[in-house]
Amino acid sequence: MKTSIVRVELSGRSYDIYIASGAFDLAVSAAKDRLSRRNPVAFVSEENIWGKFVNFDNPDFENCAKIIVENGEGAKCFRNLERICRELAQRNVDRSGAVFAVGGGVVGDLAGFSAASYMRGIDFYQVPTTLLAMVDSSVGGKTGINIPEGKNLVGAFHQPKAVFIDTSFLKTLPAREFSAGMAEVIKYGLLGDKSFFGFLENLKEPLSASHPEIGNVIAHCCKMKAKIVSNDERETSKDGGRALLNLGHTFAHAIENTAGYGHYLHGEAVGLGMLLAARMSEKLGMLSEEETSRIRRILEIYDLPVKFREPISSDLLIEAGRRDKKAMSGKSRYVLMNGIGTSVVVPGIEESLAREIFETAMG
Amino acid sequence: MKTSIVRVELSGRSYDIYIASGAFDLAVSAAKDRLSRRNPVAFVSEENIWGKFVNFDNPDFENCAKIIVENGEGAKCFRNLERICRELAQRNVDRSGAVFAVGGGVVGDLAGFSAASYMRGIDFYQVPTTLLAMVDSSVGGKTGINIPEGKNLVGAFHQPKAVFIDTSFLKTLPAREFSAGMAEVIKYGLLGDKSFFGFLENLKEPLSASHPEIGNVIAHCCKMKAKIVSNDERETSKDGGRALLNLGHTFAHAIENTAGYGHYLHGEAVGLGMLLAARMSEKLGMLSEEETSRIRRILEIYDLPVKFREPISSDLLIEAGRRDKKAMSGKSRYVLMNGIGTSVVVPGIEESLAREIFETAMG
Repeated sequence: MKTSIVRVELSGRSYDIYIASGAFDLAVSAAKDRLSRRNPVAFVSEENIWGKFVNFDNPDFENCAKIIVENGEGAKCFRNLERICRELAQRNVDRSGAVFAVGGGVVGDLAGFSAASYMRGIDFYQVPTTLLAMVDSSVGGKTGINIPEGKNLVGAFHQPKAVFIDTSFLKTLPAREFSAGMAEVIKYGLLGDKSFFGFLENLKEPLSASHPEIGNVIAHCCKMKAKIVSNDERETSKDGGRALLNLGHTFAHAIENTAGYGHYLHGEAVGLGMLLAARMSEKLGMLSEEETSRIRRILEIYDLPVKFREPISSDLLIEAGRRDKKAMSGKSRYVLMNGIGTSVVVPGIEESLAREIFETAMG
Repeated sequence: MKTSIVRVELSGRSYDIYIASGAFDLAVSAAKDRLSRRNPVAFVSEENIWGKFVNFDNPDFENCAKIIVENGEGAKCFRNLERICRELAQRNVDRSGAVFAVGGGVVGDLAGFSAASYMRGIDFYQVPTTLLAMVDSSVGGKTGINIPEGKNLVGAFHQPKAVFIDTSFLKTLPAREFSAGMAEVIKYGLLGDKSFFGFLENLKEPLSASHPEIGNVIAHCCKMKAKIVSNDERETSKDGGRALLNLGHTFAHAIENTAGYGHYLHGEAVGLGMLLAARMSEKLGMLSEEETSRIRRILEIYDLPVKFREPISSDLLIEAGRRDKKAMSGKSRYVLMNGIGTSVVVPGIEESLAREIFETAMG
């Protein structure tokens, strides 16, 4: 097993991301190591992961809490947060304990927020099983749950102790989920690396679980994210920083919130959101028509939606946008592109423009 | 209005505690100042506070969220956390927003955790209305809620931007609540200031809301807490640090958890817990019989319980103790006294000793 290691530099909270086919064994070793020091370990996973290719039912983990949540975005809720915290307490997990999140972004965000809040913070480890979680949500310490008013509106910054990315997990990932992850991969090219975007465009075969470049692509995305997170851990930078990772996300959150969680996978909404961000950028003279077309084309290669599947009320989209975390004092900020590979935060966008752009996706 | 200002030094998160009869006006000014910059403000308070001597129903605060929770420890629950976060979202509170917690420790802990979690952390201000909250829970950034498995098992470290202590609020505080706060005042003497304990013992009149020393006593407690918190914000110190503030609390949490939240006020349980800690210290040869008697005497002066009001099962007390956050890897740690004024953390206490000590409070 050849392992790529990407370091996330955050002084006292620095950690490594291990990327390899078979990296899951490293997670198992980390859990065993903690248990050998008599520190409690709990696993949080989801229905279609546990017992499929992950097996913690060996005697070493007999006494560990194993908490399985339902599939889908709906699992990121207060009910599951409470359930996990209570189960940790019932299993006598103390401050020396750790939570291992084994699953997609939903499990990582939920388990991470549970670990952040339980006893005001215990250790946790990310073991992402989807492409989206591998390149995005498992790195950087953003954790949280949804409320009916919006996605990720409740949460914490809580960095993992390590991230273990086992690329062999991708082989059983449904095609639609793989595509959703590709939206976040493409995002890295759009927000900060023109040549990486070109590399993705020019691949002879589209990326897939068995593509020889998949490990390198994931490592490249993690490196980009690690660098951005190191410079702006809590998204307080004035000139972009971590906020640039939200390219397409203001649109995406409004779409997900309005269409109902789960109707679009997060990555699908992000893909469409990036196309809308491209159109807004083009409208403001920041991006050429040809660049917008290139973005549309690569989304289509990965079967990502380039318009709404069903009509959505633009009033509701606008209303949802107002509640987005990126809004400040009632003004809307969007991450837009000054050409492919150069994202910038643009404040003070009029609602009328957002509405016009949303309407381009209507049909 | 003569205002004492105590600084809590925490580099980027430093803040001031303002102590004065009438300091509430300063909180009102802070809220108005934020509103004048078009930053949303929300108030969280409790039933018997709102409208009694606090009136935010002036036109300046017309558009602010005002969230009132029920009285008592039971309000520190997931249901209220969810309710507050949802209400903040419904009122379009964004990252520039702030929560003002106006009430006792329950409101401060609950509102503080809501502010810590909403959008992964917005500003908050503590406006404590009880003696206990003034000298202890409003300072230091510990926030949280209870679960049936134990007190404060879910929460966050989230420092306030400022604390406004209006000592005039104490004039309408029920005597029992005042006494409960006195337990935490006495604690500061026991854990780190022998002469302050002596000062309390030798007061001609016991402290009360109208006692000329009340403001100075509160300021002294805040100074002691500020110093401890500055040196050990996240309770990670190996040689005591912030953990010393938990003198009496391991016993107290077990008592509260077993008797049912609310049966004992937190301060009442802490008072009794400190007496039990004194007996354990005496048993281990760390404290003299005479010192234990002095501790018992001052608790009696303030009508604090020195035994259980009703019998409690020591099995249940021990079980609750096992779940306490201070437990590490199954071993029980207690904060004990090496003489009045010098607390130390003592690990590896046998359950049989804890049981024996609990039983001294049975009748």
